[in-house]
Amino acid sequence: MKKDVVKVRITYADTDAMGVVYHANYLKWFEIGRTELLRKMGIVYAELEKTGCNLPLTEVNCQYLAPARYDDILLVETGIDYLKRSNMKFEYIIWDEKMEKMLIEGYSTHAFTNNKGKIVRAPKEFVEKIKGSLDQNSGTIIRA
Amino acid sequence: MKKDVVKVRITYADTDAMGVVYHANYLKWFEIGRTELLRKMGIVYAELEKTGCNLPLTEVNCQYLAPARYDDILLVETGIDYLKRSNMKFEYIIWDEKMEKMLIEGYSTHAFTNNKGKIVRAPKEFVEKIKGSLDQNSGTIIRA
Amino acid sequence: MKKDVVKVRITYADTDAMGVVYHANYLKWFEIGRTELLRKMGIVYAELEKTGCNLPLTEVNCQYLAPARYDDILLVETGIDYLKRSNMKFEYIIWDEKMEKMLIEGYSTHAFTNNKGKIVRAPKEFVEKIKGSLDQNSGTIIRA
Amino acid sequence: MKKDVVKVRITYADTDAMGVVYHANYLKWFEIGRTELLRKMGIVYAELEKTGCNLPLTEVNCQYLAPARYDDILLVETGIDYLKRSNMKFEYIIWDEKMEKMLIEGYSTHAFTNNKGKIVRAPKEFVEKIKGSLDQNSGTIIRA
Repeated sequence: MKKDVVKVRITYADTDAMGVVYHANYLKWFEIGRTELLRKMGIVYAELEKTGCNLPLTEVNCQYLAPARYDDILLVETGIDYLKRSNMKFEYIIWDEKMEKMLIEGYSTHAFTNNKGKIVRAPKEFVEKIKGSLDQNSGTIIRA
Repeated sequence: MKKDVVKVRITYADTDAMGVVYHANYLKWFEIGRTELLRKMGIVYAELEKTGCNLPLTEVNCQYLAPARYDDILLVETGIDYLKRSNMKFEYIIWDEKMEKMLIEGYSTHAFTNNKGKIVRAPKEFVEKIKGSLDQNSGTIIRA
Repeated sequence: MKKDVVKVRITYADTDAMGVVYHANYLKWFEIGRTELLRKMGIVYAELEKTGCNLPLTEVNCQYLAPARYDDILLVETGIDYLKRSNMKFEYIIWDEKMEKMLIEGYSTHAFTNNKGKIVRAPKEFVEKIKGSLDQNSGTIIRA
Repeated sequence: MKKDVVKVRITYADTDAMGVVYHANYLKWFEIGRTELLRKMGIVYAELEKTGCNLPLTEVNCQYLAPARYDDILLVETGIDYLKRSNMKFEYIIWDEKMEKMLIEGYSTHAFTNNKGKIVRAPKEFVEKIKGSLDQNSGTIIRA
């Protein structure tokens, strides 16, 4: 699996008085993007957590290329840039409905931690599932 | 103490594409209203929780009388309608900055529960602090 | 059409430190529920607005029957309780994924207004589409 | 004026099921930070907008250094990194209540646009107010 694309529709709750999506809300769609990408790779984040492993953000970056409006459908494309010993990086592109226009480009980095917030190694099973999916393609997932 | 009034300023994050506050966001200001009212009565909700007692909502109601706009200052007036054996009710009025115009009227009811969500009696200390504040006035707190 | 059911999945963004959905966020799913119900009746709210007609909330009510947790799937069932000359009422039930357990019950009332917030009559075409859908069943839509 | 510090208190609405602030919500505090910094420099963003000038984000970056929890007080320190012909950059540090520990470091870049989203020059009056404040100190505002 090279990447995953999730469809979301913009609600009033997502917009602001400028008539467009409030900038912070794209980060919520990044969350949906990486959760669904992992799910397709066989990793249910909610279950990972129950094993005592978390993936909190260490950094997020978001570039706003074009605005999106109420009731628009967006396509959230998510890939994995890298998976290291104790951290990983996701990359995102948010497209218009026809996937013709890039609205948003971003990334998030995450650390593997235990329940107490201490950095730990990525769980072996997690790594294997990701690697298994990545091996089906070569190189980075997104923008390859 | 009869009631408490908290001041909030509307951010872009609070608004929607209609140019006004998104209706669900008033509930966040209700939360701030009751938290600060309790704090002034000597009850820090964050500490109450550490004792294993929660106050989850069982119902919320909100009437939208007039819209509020970006950068407006709002006054959130909160009172306690009743405190019973294992539940309580807060009432809210949200005013414009001059406290001349009611924008929102609402209430929330809450149950006292333990960490597992089971209904319990209101903690004795909690009740005493509330009663102490209420006794300084007669009757209900708000709209008295 | 008697009612509409929309599926949503709970994200981290929807939850709070109690480990459950933050109470105000159910109102966002009410919004999705009524928007999609109208869409299936042939009414795209985004287009209605362009004709200068809005449907702002005049009241919302939400009863919290049972909590919902991260990554759960919820079913948002929406119906129309009434459509009058210049206002209407939606009713909502939010169910667990198997539609066995009611988690939330609520309603919202709305006024028809023009761009300046003045109350107006419901547009004729709007009424016809709703009535057309309602006539396929008798009585109220939900809990009939 | 070198920088501005705004105090915010974390509500339940701001947290997530990990027990800490949901990462996207820090961006809302960045918004409060820059709005209040500008206000102290004599620029009310709500009024700027009425003149037909907007300052939409072109990029945001946020580094998560340490988590924050329900009911904590945070200090949002905001400065201006640069103001150019048609864009500007704000920098943010979010501290714990005692201003001893950095929790968040971030920045946002903004373009000056007209009502139609077209890039324009920063309004003369805006520039003068910023420059006037900056001249009271040398160099960049934050981390100088």
